[in-house]
Amino acid sequence: MTTEAVRSYLREHHDRFVAELATWLKIASVSTSAAQAEEVRRAGVWAHEKLVAIGFPVVETIATAGHPLVFAEWLAHPGQPTLLIYGHYDVQPAEPLEAWLSLPFAPAIRDGNIHARGAVDDKGQVMLVLAALEAWSRSIGGLPINVKVILEGEEEMGGESIEAWVRSGPARLRADAALICDTHMVGEKQPSLITGLRGILYTEIAMHGPARDLHSGSYGGVAPNPIHALCVLINRLKGEDGVIRIPELTAALQPPPRAEKKFWDADPLHLEEALCREMGVDSLVGEEAYPPLERIGARPTLEVHGIRGGFTAKGAKTVIPAEALAKVSLRLPAGLKPAEVFVWFEKAVRRHTPAGHRVEVIQLSGGEGLVVSPENPFIKAASAAIESTFGVAPVFMREGGSIPVAALFDQILQLPVVLMGFGLPDDGPHGPNEKFSLAQFARGMATVAEFLGRLRQ
Amino acid sequence: MTTEAVRSYLREHHDRFVAELATWLKIASVSTSAAQAEEVRRAGVWAHEKLVAIGFPVVETIATAGHPLVFAEWLAHPGQPTLLIYGHYDVQPAEPLEAWLSLPFAPAIRDGNIHARGAVDDKGQVMLVLAALEAWSRSIGGLPINVKVILEGEEEMGGESIEAWVRSGPARLRADAALICDTHMVGEKQPSLITGLRGILYTEIAMHGPARDLHSGSYGGVAPNPIHALCVLINRLKGEDGVIRIPELTAALQPPPRAEKKFWDADPLHLEEALCREMGVDSLVGEEAYPPLERIGARPTLEVHGIRGGFTAKGAKTVIPAEALAKVSLRLPAGLKPAEVFVWFEKAVRRHTPAGHRVEVIQLSGGEGLVVSPENPFIKAASAAIESTFGVAPVFMREGGSIPVAALFDQILQLPVVLMGFGLPDDGPHGPNEKFSLAQFARGMATVAEFLGRLRQ
Repeated sequence: MTTEAVRSYLREHHDRFVAELATWLKIASVSTSAAQAEEVRRAGVWAHEKLVAIGFPVVETIATAGHPLVFAEWLAHPGQPTLLIYGHYDVQPAEPLEAWLSLPFAPAIRDGNIHARGAVDDKGQVMLVLAALEAWSRSIGGLPINVKVILEGEEEMGGESIEAWVRSGPARLRADAALICDTHMVGEKQPSLITGLRGILYTEIAMHGPARDLHSGSYGGVAPNPIHALCVLINRLKGEDGVIRIPELTAALQPPPRAEKKFWDADPLHLEEALCREMGVDSLVGEEAYPPLERIGARPTLEVHGIRGGFTAKGAKTVIPAEALAKVSLRLPAGLKPAEVFVWFEKAVRRHTPAGHRVEVIQLSGGEGLVVSPENPFIKAASAAIESTFGVAPVFMREGGSIPVAALFDQILQLPVVLMGFGLPDDGPHGPNEKFSLAQFARGMATVAEFLGRLRQ
Repeated sequence: MTTEAVRSYLREHHDRFVAELATWLKIASVSTSAAQAEEVRRAGVWAHEKLVAIGFPVVETIATAGHPLVFAEWLAHPGQPTLLIYGHYDVQPAEPLEAWLSLPFAPAIRDGNIHARGAVDDKGQVMLVLAALEAWSRSIGGLPINVKVILEGEEEMGGESIEAWVRSGPARLRADAALICDTHMVGEKQPSLITGLRGILYTEIAMHGPARDLHSGSYGGVAPNPIHALCVLINRLKGEDGVIRIPELTAALQPPPRAEKKFWDADPLHLEEALCREMGVDSLVGEEAYPPLERIGARPTLEVHGIRGGFTAKGAKTVIPAEALAKVSLRLPAGLKPAEVFVWFEKAVRRHTPAGHRVEVIQLSGGEGLVVSPENPFIKAASAAIESTFGVAPVFMREGGSIPVAALFDQILQLPVVLMGFGLPDDGPHGPNEKFSLAQFARGMATVAEFLGRLRQ
């Protein structure tokens, strides 16, 4: 149980925690941008110093082939459980900048939300965990259980370094459970816990046509056009019906548990309306045969995230370009291995590429999905902590996003993973004007503090 | 007939003409770029001054809503025919710059070719006409016939100003025939004259999906993806078979004259091999039912010139973007009106746009096609001039490119249009490393000078 001292510490220091978060958000730690490597490093240094200030006796910044890992541990309670807390201090690129109402790295508070790139994904959610740890540390001179913290700076670029470390199975990462705050809830009044995550395979397709750019007047009608070929290919991989045409993938899909399927079919959260409102559309698209909860959480998807080719500036240029490029991801239900799916995907891409073109496809990143049982005692403690601060018991959901590290904790470290996120559906984590509700920030601190207390035996 | 004096003048001053062309090519007159409006103006001033230097008694730069028109006339021979010579001093954008071996606006001579944006399209071809006019002027103190020159600076952006002027049917543009040097020949050893041009309709399609950029983890499976919708749409407008699916367009196509169809079917120029070599591909694509000459010159085409949407920088961003954009043109056989085809096109775009998306389509530019008779006396004079300088009679071809002004001269001014171009198929007019053969430049000067002489009655 959270002591009254911890609760009042969180209330008293709330504004400082927001200010600290704002300081952290000002660091433009875009991990996919080589030009911003120094900013990523600085964001890691900020977290390192904060962990020292909280009182962790061991804090280390570990160099990697990419961006550093920040590790801390405070193991003062033999016989008590050890919780491994994960977060990431890197952020998505902020482009297109012109779509932001305030600059992405100049945090601005409007209507009870803090707006910045990384506000909810994931600095804001790491900050609320750090606040809960500080509250315990300052109130009782330590933490109620044993805690390890691991923060990475490569989550938005594939997380290779942490994957390599986790795969090496180090004793330092041994724990009884993992906590990840990097997801969102159904709503402020309907908290949720995530018991399933999809995996991801992220690829890049380069389509090549003529040896050089051509004039469409002279060659239009006989020339291969790689933009057109890319459109034909993408349409064949997935049509308007939302059905992915990769036979090996279709064959590998498992039917979901009957209870979950029943929950999805009933759609008690009225997600169809909520999703339309959040996205600003009139109706959902995709596989009509499946309800929205299942489409988002348990069905595979194929999405084009970017496409580029030829002349797209103002005006008219009648060129047939030599090449075109697309970024395509597949979200994968738990159990599917990205490396294996990539083989099927590449085969389908080659088979569906129109004649006269040469195609290249590479895997940029990948991560497996995850399913955890609602009966696990750590999940039960998290559920109870949420109910005590939100006043409502959480529903158990499958989330469409991928957190590859969660699958690694599950498969390599054999830890039950508690996915307790405090984002809201309209936070827009990868788009412009990303925000985090300050009310959720406060509830999140209290919930994590409560969770830590409940784990003490 | 060309006098010996004119011929030797051209030989003696050849190097200076190349140097003058290089000076002109250094002016980056990209008409579609607002930032380069001053360069476009300077390229027009250069032409104006050159016409004055040649001896034209009347030279005027005419302001328009866009870039200026340069007009000159020398009407010293009542009873002799009047030739209206057209050219353009603006050029295509030079992007992508990294694909150029030498900078696009720093003309470089390599292997007997001058390399620069505009080398062949159209400054080099206007320059050879100006050289021929100068040679006559300096050799006999005037021109053998009456000549009007009209140069525009908006050809690569749709030519609105010249169109408005021609449509007003001004007395100043009255003539007996028009000469346009802005096309290419089959080859150095196989000259050709163009007796047909396709028209063009150039459009831009904006596809809108969700109200803001979305995270594919949270919404993938139910969210409209405008990139995907654009791919589906484009694939429906034209499939891998090259067949355009716009029923009104298909219904409006006329069967070609029997003699031309026979020439195309026989493919005496072995264009299939030549086209594959020029494009650097193994086989042609497009409508298998039609021979390459017909596909290029007389069939409609639908080409995507550019596509843009979402995240395409280095790395992986799992965004579903709010919108995506494509530039699409249709080349139109003679007789089809772009405005009418746009109505059919827009209808097809709306019909084929996947559900859940909103589409906008606008016409950026348009121009009608053209057919002229090989029996016209001006065409016969051009044919004879070519035979006298190349030693081979030209073949009559239909060209796939569009020169909207040619159609205007034909339809509004009722002039027979002589399309006598000296480019070669591998000049790459709209791509990087555009070039013009200096041998063709020299033959072009001699041919135009000869043509002017042959028109004197």
